[in-house]
Amino acid sequence: MKVVIVLYTAGKHAEDESRLYGCTENALGIKEELEKAGHTVVVTADKEGSNSEFEKNLPDADIVITTPFHPAYLTKERLQKAKKLKLVVVAGVGSDHIDLDYINQNKLDISVLEVTGSNVVSVAEHVVMTILILVRNFVPAHEQIMAGEWDVAGIAKDSFDIENKTIATIGAGRIGYRVLERLVPFNPKELLYYDYQALPAEAEKKVGARRVTDLKELVAQADIVTINCPLHAGSKGLINKELLKHFKKGSWLVNTARGAICVAADVAEAVENGTLRGYGGDVWFPQPAPKDHPWRKFHNQYGAGNAMVPHYSGTVIDAQVRYANGTKAIVESFLSGKFDYRPQDIILLNGQYKTKAYGDDKKV
Amino acid sequence: MKVVIVLYTAGKHAEDESRLYGCTENALGIKEELEKAGHTVVVTADKEGSNSEFEKNLPDADIVITTPFHPAYLTKERLQKAKKLKLVVVAGVGSDHIDLDYINQNKLDISVLEVTGSNVVSVAEHVVMTILILVRNFVPAHEQIMAGEWDVAGIAKDSFDIENKTIATIGAGRIGYRVLERLVPFNPKELLYYDYQALPAEAEKKVGARRVTDLKELVAQADIVTINCPLHAGSKGLINKELLKHFKKGSWLVNTARGAICVAADVAEAVENGTLRGYGGDVWFPQPAPKDHPWRKFHNQYGAGNAMVPHYSGTVIDAQVRYANGTKAIVESFLSGKFDYRPQDIILLNGQYKTKAYGDDKKV
Repeated sequence: MKVVIVLYTAGKHAEDESRLYGCTENALGIKEELEKAGHTVVVTADKEGSNSEFEKNLPDADIVITTPFHPAYLTKERLQKAKKLKLVVVAGVGSDHIDLDYINQNKLDISVLEVTGSNVVSVAEHVVMTILILVRNFVPAHEQIMAGEWDVAGIAKDSFDIENKTIATIGAGRIGYRVLERLVPFNPKELLYYDYQALPAEAEKKVGARRVTDLKELVAQADIVTINCPLHAGSKGLINKELLKHFKKGSWLVNTARGAICVAADVAEAVENGTLRGYGGDVWFPQPAPKDHPWRKFHNQYGAGNAMVPHYSGTVIDAQVRYANGTKAIVESFLSGKFDYRPQDIILLNGQYKTKAYGDDKKV
Repeated sequence: MKVVIVLYTAGKHAEDESRLYGCTENALGIKEELEKAGHTVVVTADKEGSNSEFEKNLPDADIVITTPFHPAYLTKERLQKAKKLKLVVVAGVGSDHIDLDYINQNKLDISVLEVTGSNVVSVAEHVVMTILILVRNFVPAHEQIMAGEWDVAGIAKDSFDIENKTIATIGAGRIGYRVLERLVPFNPKELLYYDYQALPAEAEKKVGARRVTDLKELVAQADIVTINCPLHAGSKGLINKELLKHFKKGSWLVNTARGAICVAADVAEAVENGTLRGYGGDVWFPQPAPKDHPWRKFHNQYGAGNAMVPHYSGTVIDAQVRYANGTKAIVESFLSGKFDYRPQDIILLNGQYKTKAYGDDKKV
């Protein structure tokens, strides 16, 4: 078997931290074992364009392993070249960089698996952190200290508690629900959620959340909105100029789901013109984000309101340990011929959808 | 009556936000009313040295109103000059900038009141935010984006979840307990606390916290330590080179209590040498912090681990509304001659301690 693994290159960082599994140097901790068993393993960070190592190795690859942090995009064109491909493993969560509908509709015998749950806690923590950073106005406060300054009023005037605010999540699945759970003791005014299905009554009661079935009505009521849904045809560009008109003036938006759920220029403009007080998160399109991406530059009227970071919330060390172990288990299950995958990890099994989260008929 | 109010000057920030009550321009919303009632009101930000407006107006001041964010230090020498002083109101929480023991021991007829509770939620939120920022390594991640860079591995190698970490609070009072409450759904490995008195059994059970009565044993077990106790003779310099030797290597420390609880140089050195992975908070000594304060400069081996901000956690807009209202109520109660203060607001009543939180016999 030929296994092609696409990961970011960590250089000296891989030496600094041996648990940094998700990089080319440490190769999820599975390279040696696979080679010892007689398989060919190609590990590369070079993933863009037809001359990339990734694309050159696609035609005879049996297994492709990629991550959402440095995604090897599997487009229709690339899938047509990958004649031997049987298994795609996402070391992490989120398969939107793969044209799942193309595989499904053309009945390609390809299975796509994620390590479900490996990132949920990490991302939920990042969401709560980003809400606090934006609402409490951390970034300019820290910059002030580093610049040798001290101007409490300049920070305080744009700084608030999250207590007694209405907080809404778009998507109340594994991550969105964990965000709600973590927000409860902060005593929000109300927790709202929007999802294609209602939470079980018990789960809804536990966090005291109220479902709102109209997205415009949801954002119109919320002081803080957080996006926690998958990217698919139904959610691409969901947050655009039109929907932003319905947001509460001066609210905050956090997105750790996928960059393409937002129209980048529209969101940047919304912060610049005061529709939003701030925007933050770790997801971009494309990734790595180009130097001139609008999210690297926007600020509100006070030079604040930007809490962007590179895509790393689900790749902290604790998460790397989880998804390295999960990837190993999936690959071993495939190679053994047992295919005894964890059901929740399966996105496509031999081309067939095994999840409700993807597919071109999806709502959020 | 002559009322001297010491607040920071906000300049254009006061125009930007009318709810920014705690500045000289907005004067806690009480100046006009007091003047209309025939009182003399001096509002100033000038508080250092014998030529300051504050010190020049002290000899005939009946009431002094100050804040912890821009503290008008009431030292022994200044108290000796304040012959007419009857009431000191702290618009906020924390009276350590006043020589309470001197008032008490010399039987001065001065009452000191705080607006208890006005900052507790705000500070507890800031603590949880700072823990997340340090453990998840937010600051260098955001700096990377602003600098046009993208290096996920460089951030991820020093980034972790707070889930499954042991988190300890020094002080489990109004703020410390709220921190514990907010941490519960993050599923820490264990929550620990150190306090001169045990929590009520029910409160302890609610957050699942375990009391540790030896401070060295507490810090030796904790991945994350947060300081939530008052500053007094027993807590001044508590976190020093000697105690830092007992900290778990590579742990994180958060302090939103008072700067002087830490020996500044020792904490900075601990981050530089790897004893701590990071330190963050909003309290300094003195305030405003001088340009060369060591906490403006320290970093860990990766150029990260600094989450310092100016002292503003308890002066966000929501808190300003609370302490402006509270200050007004205390002053009105005094001027009416009813002295029907909220019991929890009284630190000294006519020179007598009415709280266990201060006094030179105190432990943490």
